[in-house]
Amino acid sequence: MTSSTTAAPTHWVLTLSCPDRPGIVHQVAGTLAAHGGNITESQQFGDPASGLFFMRVQVESAASRDAIEAALAPVVAEFGMTWTLDVVGRRVRTLLMVSKAPHCLADLLYRERHQGLPVDVVGVVGNHPDLAGIAAFYDKPFHHVPVTKDTKADAEATLRGLVDALDVELVVLARYMQILSDDLCRDLSGQVINIHHSFLPSFKGARPYAQALDRGVKLIGATSHYVTGDLDEGPIIEQDVERVDHSNDEPQLVSLGQDVERRVLARAVRWHAEHRVLLDGHRTVVFR
Amino acid sequence: MTSSTTAAPTHWVLTLSCPDRPGIVHQVAGTLAAHGGNITESQQFGDPASGLFFMRVQVESAASRDAIEAALAPVVAEFGMTWTLDVVGRRVRTLLMVSKAPHCLADLLYRERHQGLPVDVVGVVGNHPDLAGIAAFYDKPFHHVPVTKDTKADAEATLRGLVDALDVELVVLARYMQILSDDLCRDLSGQVINIHHSFLPSFKGARPYAQALDRGVKLIGATSHYVTGDLDEGPIIEQDVERVDHSNDEPQLVSLGQDVERRVLARAVRWHAEHRVLLDGHRTVVFR
Amino acid sequence: MTSSTTAAPTHWVLTLSCPDRPGIVHQVAGTLAAHGGNITESQQFGDPASGLFFMRVQVESAASRDAIEAALAPVVAEFGMTWTLDVVGRRVRTLLMVSKAPHCLADLLYRERHQGLPVDVVGVVGNHPDLAGIAAFYDKPFHHVPVTKDTKADAEATLRGLVDALDVELVVLARYMQILSDDLCRDLSGQVINIHHSFLPSFKGARPYAQALDRGVKLIGATSHYVTGDLDEGPIIEQDVERVDHSNDEPQLVSLGQDVERRVLARAVRWHAEHRVLLDGHRTVVFR
Amino acid sequence: MTSSTTAAPTHWVLTLSCPDRPGIVHQVAGTLAAHGGNITESQQFGDPASGLFFMRVQVESAASRDAIEAALAPVVAEFGMTWTLDVVGRRVRTLLMVSKAPHCLADLLYRERHQGLPVDVVGVVGNHPDLAGIAAFYDKPFHHVPVTKDTKADAEATLRGLVDALDVELVVLARYMQILSDDLCRDLSGQVINIHHSFLPSFKGARPYAQALDRGVKLIGATSHYVTGDLDEGPIIEQDVERVDHSNDEPQLVSLGQDVERRVLARAVRWHAEHRVLLDGHRTVVFR
Repeated sequence: MTSSTTAAPTHWVLTLSCPDRPGIVHQVAGTLAAHGGNITESQQFGDPASGLFFMRVQVESAASRDAIEAALAPVVAEFGMTWTLDVVGRRVRTLLMVSKAPHCLADLLYRERHQGLPVDVVGVVGNHPDLAGIAAFYDKPFHHVPVTKDTKADAEATLRGLVDALDVELVVLARYMQILSDDLCRDLSGQVINIHHSFLPSFKGARPYAQALDRGVKLIGATSHYVTGDLDEGPIIEQDVERVDHSNDEPQLVSLGQDVERRVLARAVRWHAEHRVLLDGHRTVVFR
Repeated sequence: MTSSTTAAPTHWVLTLSCPDRPGIVHQVAGTLAAHGGNITESQQFGDPASGLFFMRVQVESAASRDAIEAALAPVVAEFGMTWTLDVVGRRVRTLLMVSKAPHCLADLLYRERHQGLPVDVVGVVGNHPDLAGIAAFYDKPFHHVPVTKDTKADAEATLRGLVDALDVELVVLARYMQILSDDLCRDLSGQVINIHHSFLPSFKGARPYAQALDRGVKLIGATSHYVTGDLDEGPIIEQDVERVDHSNDEPQLVSLGQDVERRVLARAVRWHAEHRVLLDGHRTVVFR
Repeated sequence: MTSSTTAAPTHWVLTLSCPDRPGIVHQVAGTLAAHGGNITESQQFGDPASGLFFMRVQVESAASRDAIEAALAPVVAEFGMTWTLDVVGRRVRTLLMVSKAPHCLADLLYRERHQGLPVDVVGVVGNHPDLAGIAAFYDKPFHHVPVTKDTKADAEATLRGLVDALDVELVVLARYMQILSDDLCRDLSGQVINIHHSFLPSFKGARPYAQALDRGVKLIGATSHYVTGDLDEGPIIEQDVERVDHSNDEPQLVSLGQDVERRVLARAVRWHAEHRVLLDGHRTVVFR
Repeated sequence: MTSSTTAAPTHWVLTLSCPDRPGIVHQVAGTLAAHGGNITESQQFGDPASGLFFMRVQVESAASRDAIEAALAPVVAEFGMTWTLDVVGRRVRTLLMVSKAPHCLADLLYRERHQGLPVDVVGVVGNHPDLAGIAAFYDKPFHHVPVTKDTKADAEATLRGLVDALDVELVVLARYMQILSDDLCRDLSGQVINIHHSFLPSFKGARPYAQALDRGVKLIGATSHYVTGDLDEGPIIEQDVERVDHSNDEPQLVSLGQDVERRVLARAVRWHAEHRVLLDGHRTVVFR
């Protein structure tokens, strides 16, 4: 009897994607079963448009990470898989970026502390100092990194330094009112989540709630998405709406909009941290 | 004792709009009270953006229409009011226009017959004959008016003829896949309701659900609005959404979209027929 | 080369449940793969409360039903599985039972004809004759089976006769205002879906909307569930709500309630017919 | 010209209820107009069940409170009105009562500070000390008032003392897990709002989410209501739901439930503080 079979089992989560063809589930399930894994949750999806196959498996196994990875290696090679393996519930090292609006920051930190959001917020970056107090209340280091046209390159260098030094896995733009450079977006591809203060596609440009008011919409929405070079066009993770009517003025729309923004962003961060979001080109597969 | 006080009271609905200034409610309520009216429901709204005031009053009164109109005349003149006076629950003479998709037609006719939608559908116009059977089931005259580039002017003349001959008060484009001419839109301004198979603002052009699928949205929506020359840009009456996910293909999006379309259109038609929708420039005030 | 491999593949849907233990997914996926099956969709769930495991798999395979069943037999035996195997999209032979309210009947028949609801409604039973016209419009045989205290046993015998003669697989109580006997409920266990005109748990007894009005609720709901001996307590399949307010009178609550009832029932019927609903004791697992 | 007419106008909100009969709106609007008032928002409702009439008016007027009250006095007397007069946006002096669950407390304090919730939280009472830190972050005095069977009377005396000393107008039970005595409920009637961690009517007794899980519900809800002697049966102010499914375990239900609880409670507090909630027997009229 080896130690790997007597150890308490670990609850693993495996995600993978690859070109779709017969036998993937069988091979993956068989490989896991051969190592004593008990699949507790499994979802898959074949996208006819992209021809890609996506799978998320939770499996209890006493095998070590090295043993699982070694066992999966030939399957990964055979199917050309992109994959991740993590422990269920491990808190993802996260950096929050903010400007002046507190609603998303306060909500995410609250959920980390009180509602089991599986992130470990290792720092808060603000291009304004306004939200340092909220960070302090939650015992989070606050980094004031002002951004002007002249200092943008320096600011991004600082940001990259923080990402490296803090082993950041996820960056959340929690109403961060600056645009990241294309280079940074590319280097952090799939690791940066933004909350867009409107539906996508929707009102372009400044003051979307003023535009919504002017257009007389009956619903306002918010969209969380991965950041790509094209700021508001990255793969959508989650959207939701709130009902409004003619009597709502712009401050009310903003307030209602903030509620839906924080709700949508919190869901997106949770699903990402739980490895429920897989990239399918410029779309996402979300295994809720 | 005059006959006006002994008659059973009628339940009236009065709507009005005018430039906002003090005293409107007082004058209107006073005028109605002076004629024995008992206000059962009243809503008003002053739009700071347009400077306009809107009011909808339901009032029980034994006074005749002539008596009420005469009493209101000086108030209307003083404030420069646009107004309507109708009997609560009177069924609005309505013409439905359709192409091939049956969901909105079937739902509206069902609601007229079984759910008290206060319309009297006096005819159904189809540019295709496909939906004649549904019209027949509900005992509605079906007019097949094909539209080609060459016959468009004739078709609109036929339509105008029907509107006149049938005393049509409301035209509902229940997935009618033709664009009305600017002239017709202008002549029937505020009397034509369309259902748009998407959010506004949203995907422009053909096959919006295919676009939505391609974009990977997590919600699909529908919008009902008054028709203006700019087809998809008229004043919005109602919007709603349905949740979708990566696993929904285009037929499923279409099916879910049809559910939300028929629901949104039915609400808009009901509110219009109940005189709950007032035009405020390119927006609406909806007294739900 | 055998004919089974050259035939066009069939799209199968397999559901199963059994006591949870390691290796189920592996065995099932392996068995399907060994017969050239390509899994296109798969969901599973292990219920820690009941200790049961549930799985739904869609698989493309050119193998015959007999071949698949033979291949699964040892797996089924080993794990003690309850299972079903069907062709994706096959229309389930369905009997609708109604009284006087038309909304659910009209909606289900509409969805069968126009929206791909995968049922084949082989008949409509009404304890009142009122809805014969709707059935006729959709070319469905209508059976008027009155029920009085004295004739209830006869009526159920008639119903059983229809179920047998028409090879009925699913009975939908589409606002059927009679209670089925315990015997019948037991004999048709898992094959009868009801729509309850309220939330569960909720207002017991007659006129739930009057009770809801009296209680001043701000939401009304509907619940679809499998029928067991205890009429309103069977396993819940789907629930939804509609917002109401103080101004809604009982007829309006009824009308809004009918909208949510027909929506909830249509979803339950679709999911059942697509084999997405699995029984887990007095609960359901719904693989949407 | 008196000073009262040259002062900048105040934005007043007047609510009233009385037995319904003709002329109320006219009299009220007329009285306000006679004092230079410009009605900016007005809603009314006559309840056929209770025979009561309800009205909420926002009016801009340069008249003093004394002048308005004096003008209204004869109308109030004539119709037997219950009424309130307040300044729009005035922050209502509010006492929050909590136990250990932080979600409602944190959300309400956040909304007071950042989202214009029109309350002035003058203190937080906890029967446990756990939430003192959140109160401190928002600079709110925290009063630890433990409650045991033996000290309940003392605790309520302390609470009454705080209500008096702090001029408390509204008490919010923000997941306060103690039952107030009938005497206290009566003395503070219409001034205490509770959030119930479930739908009403719904699961009675302890651990409602465990009950919901056991029942297999597909939606969970929350209800905010005024407190009466019968804890969970007071007049409902607001309800909402969140969708759940078979895969949600009890902690997830609790977490999702907390989201809907805080949202529902925040709405109820806002509407109460804006004088949008009027009592109609054991129901409420909510002028949203």
